Amino acid sequence: MSDTTRQPTFRSAGIIGLGLIGGSIARDLSALGVRVLAYDRDPSTIELARAEGVVDEVLDGSLAGLRDAEVVIVAVPVSSLRIVLAAMPALQRARLITDVGSTKRSALLAAESLGIGERFVGSHPMAGDHRSGWRASRGGLFDSARVYMCRTQHTRGDAFVLAQELWQALGASPEEIAADAHDHLLAYASHLPQAIATALALALADAGVSRSSLGPGGRDTTRLAGGSAEMWTAIARDNADALLPAIAALEAQLQTLKATLARGDEGAIRAMFTMARTWSFRE
Amino acid sequence: MSDTTRQPTFRSAGIIGLGLIGGSIARDLSALGVRVLAYDRDPSTIELARAEGVVDEVLDGSLAGLRDAEVVIVAVPVSSLRIVLAAMPALQRARLITDVGSTKRSALLAAESLGIGERFVGSHPMAGDHRSGWRASRGGLFDSARVYMCRTQHTRGDAFVLAQELWQALGASPEEIAADAHDHLLAYASHLPQAIATALALALADAGVSRSSLGPGGRDTTRLAGGSAEMWTAIARDNADALLPAIAALEAQLQTLKATLARGDEGAIRAMFTMARTWSFRE
Repeated sequence: MSDTTRQPTFRSAGIIGLGLIGGSIARDLSALGVRVLAYDRDPSTIELARAEGVVDEVLDGSLAGLRDAEVVIVAVPVSSLRIVLAAMPALQRARLITDVGSTKRSALLAAESLGIGERFVGSHPMAGDHRSGWRASRGGLFDSARVYMCRTQHTRGDAFVLAQELWQALGASPEEIAADAHDHLLAYASHLPQAIATALALALADAGVSRSSLGPGGRDTTRLAGGSAEMWTAIARDNADALLPAIAALEAQLQTLKATLARGDEGAIRAMFTMARTWSFRE
Repeated sequence: MSDTTRQPTFRSAGIIGLGLIGGSIARDLSALGVRVLAYDRDPSTIELARAEGVVDEVLDGSLAGLRDAEVVIVAVPVSSLRIVLAAMPALQRARLITDVGSTKRSALLAAESLGIGERFVGSHPMAGDHRSGWRASRGGLFDSARVYMCRTQHTRGDAFVLAQELWQALGASPEEIAADAHDHLLAYASHLPQAIATALALALADAGVSRSSLGPGGRDTTRLAGGSAEMWTAIARDNADALLPAIAALEAQLQTLKATLARGDEGAIRAMFTMARTWSFRE
């Protein structure tokens, strides 16, 4: 972790879901001396995490043990967040409840409607991988990563500060953003690349082209297609209203490229490749 | 280079164009003790290559010095191949003339029409990078890479064997393919990913999203957009008849994805992500 890592002021954290993100948070917090209480729907995952010494206390399905946690982190697919928040016991000790999902409007709505808006902060760490699950988790995943943070209409200042502290303790750089702006930005910056990699994989599959026959560039462009179908189905559905216009914007670019190719317009084709290249190397 | 590298039987090679591919070939052949005669349109590139000891003899624009080369490798954008082949002096010593371009039908046509079909083999190494130019070149670039090789209607057996030997000397795996099949396959496996990365970059630029604000996945998916505009304009124009249907196939996938998102069809969305993921992990 980077030099900016700071020791957290909380002593215990409850983590629901030990996938790539939840598992990596658990590893880092455990290494920092925080007591980790955890639940995962897969018993073998919990076994592994406990055997590795990452989890101090295994929570049962009632999540009753969360009552002792100062910080609660829900790291489940976005479609399950509301259900998990609703199933929690009264969290009298918790000073912060946060999530890690790729969409933020629905997360804030769920927290507000369940009456935990004051202590809820929506988090979205921009760290990830096409791999998923506990086995893909690792210490240091969030080192130098940007983490978007969104307040509900009622988030208290101390809860927000604690969320910043949590992510800084993991070496990340928190950045506040409004939930609407977040979901619009991520529709382009993350969900559109996922949609494109998926569509490309399906087009290649139909054409009988295997991934192993691709060069380095084709492999890069299709890497995201290997991501979790469950996670991406939930994200795409949750953010469909922002993703649909982003896909349409991409289609418009493809239409233009096809038109310039069809008429053999060398100058126009070159202009498109040149503009894309310019964007690539701009900060 | 891998253990399968074999010492070449030729002692001299003329290389036209010291970009990423030509420069990397020059580095490997020089390291194997082959005498490298080279030309590049950029005098400073030739200076650098000579100063690094990679080039033994600098060719002038007449290319007259190629008369001494046993093997001639033309590593220029595909749009320049015909012009370069036509400008060469009579190559009485050369046993093999080959290129490295990403399209092969036009390369074979150019060689046949210029009367060098007997000694010409079209080569396409599946090694590359979004970076280009001499500074991006490196030894070992072709190690374990697949190299597609195409015969003209008149390629002699000894020329084809020599081309195999050339690529095996660089650690690569030559694989024969018909030019039509090559250009169709590459339209999907390479030119379509390039088109998509370019269109995505332009859509993100329009939306005001910078590359630095992307996560690891978005960066992977747009990496190819940083490639050489000159090279890709030439490839896209040359293979437009194969690339246009490939783009259309991708558009059809995006249409289906949009339709399933618009109607919130969870099962259909999940099926698309699942099929793409299955393709990703199949050999």
